[in-house]
Amino acid sequence: MSSWVDGDPADTLSVKDRGLAYGDGLFETIAVRSGRPTLFERHLQRLELGCQRLGMAFERERIVDESLRFAGQMGDGVMKLILTRGDGLRGYAPPADAQARRILQAGPIPAYPPVNEQHGVRLFPCQTRLAQQPRLAGLKHLNRLEQVLARGEWQDNEHAEGLLCDTDERVIEGVYSNLFLVKDGGLLTADLSRCGVAGVMRAELLHQARELKLVTDIRDLALSDLAAADEVFLCNSVYGIWPVIGYGQLSWPVGPLTRKLQGIARALLDI
Amino acid sequence: MSSWVDGDPADTLSVKDRGLAYGDGLFETIAVRSGRPTLFERHLQRLELGCQRLGMAFERERIVDESLRFAGQMGDGVMKLILTRGDGLRGYAPPADAQARRILQAGPIPAYPPVNEQHGVRLFPCQTRLAQQPRLAGLKHLNRLEQVLARGEWQDNEHAEGLLCDTDERVIEGVYSNLFLVKDGGLLTADLSRCGVAGVMRAELLHQARELKLVTDIRDLALSDLAAADEVFLCNSVYGIWPVIGYGQLSWPVGPLTRKLQGIARALLDI
Repeated sequence: MSSWVDGDPADTLSVKDRGLAYGDGLFETIAVRSGRPTLFERHLQRLELGCQRLGMAFERERIVDESLRFAGQMGDGVMKLILTRGDGLRGYAPPADAQARRILQAGPIPAYPPVNEQHGVRLFPCQTRLAQQPRLAGLKHLNRLEQVLARGEWQDNEHAEGLLCDTDERVIEGVYSNLFLVKDGGLLTADLSRCGVAGVMRAELLHQARELKLVTDIRDLALSDLAAADEVFLCNSVYGIWPVIGYGQLSWPVGPLTRKLQGIARALLDI
Repeated sequence: MSSWVDGDPADTLSVKDRGLAYGDGLFETIAVRSGRPTLFERHLQRLELGCQRLGMAFERERIVDESLRFAGQMGDGVMKLILTRGDGLRGYAPPADAQARRILQAGPIPAYPPVNEQHGVRLFPCQTRLAQQPRLAGLKHLNRLEQVLARGEWQDNEHAEGLLCDTDERVIEGVYSNLFLVKDGGLLTADLSRCGVAGVMRAELLHQARELKLVTDIRDLALSDLAAADEVFLCNSVYGIWPVIGYGQLSWPVGPLTRKLQGIARALLDI
């Protein structure tokens, strides 16, 4: 699989990079279809917001130009775009004039079992809790040890995803997906102002739901909300939507709104 | 400055490294004097504990051998030892049989102003709060965005360090140091079971204090404990001990126990 660093083909980067030293950076995982990145504008928006909140320069034109050229040679695949604060001097202090380092990596579209999308998935009950850090909440930054620990909790094939709660037992998201509940014909998803990753597909589905005049509610969710939901689904910007059919003793049907939004997500991803 | 990756001289590493992708690894910053790492056994102990808690293999002999050979060519300096979970497949799941990648980097001993050690430092009141994540608390892992944000809060030279509280306003540590309070001839330092980095110098000073028959108390600390302290000091495994003389409206003298432990810390670091 090919990769570029700062616009040039390279499969290595400096050991002084602050992305390695501190996780000082951000990333996006972007589905590419026929050489074109999907949901690209939303990925760029999240990246720009992340740069603002981390105090990093965001060179939109350069990032867009490199990403489009890189994707153009990929055909179908997943493009990972990492921005780091570049090489570090010793110490945590962020350099005042740091230009973000751009890293692009190409990989195949993951071969998820088609059953996930067609018949739905069961969620593993992760014991790992998400810590609450409002300054980093919502960002797709490079500090992802919580996800590594959570994903390490199960090895079976019975669970395609795990459910993550925060340290106050609020229901937040999947390990690599956002979670939606359908209740009385409207959409519910977790408030991500304390922790969690504000997914690009989540943002797009909220937008699409409003276009469809559906009620959308972003708020704190408890396990009781999950139990009371009519339908439950996961989403991300690579696979689209997977219905959730079980979590512990709870179960849900694959419902009509999930199917409708699944079609929209597939269209958005050119699947 | 020289660096090794997996035992060989190299100044780059794979862009697929999970240390970059997720901060999936640990590090130690070790003072080297006359080619010998100081407090090396304690650094190794923390690294081993970190590997256990992250589910990474800890190849002690290989790490010791490489570190001693690398330090041996350094003279005086700071050796940074990073362990990562190696190259990743796509996704958070930790590979079952991952061998840790070893990265060694040499740098100079930082040129801190001698006044820090002699006359003490003032602490900047960081607004960044430490999130509470018991599964990662105490470890020196590669997810350090909180420290980057906190250290970015001040640029003046008036403050040599910043004080970090957790999200429940407990007093925890400095951005790159641990904090001790002296009260009634005994030592107080924060419980680090929810957040914070359990420093090697902190561990050694607790050990030394017990050898001196001092009372040592590791517990939750409030700002009121700070206000009530007779002496306050910071420590880490590179500079040893800095007295703290001010924080906001609070001030402390450079007291006799701080001076006594400072001498012990200097000896431990071969300064």
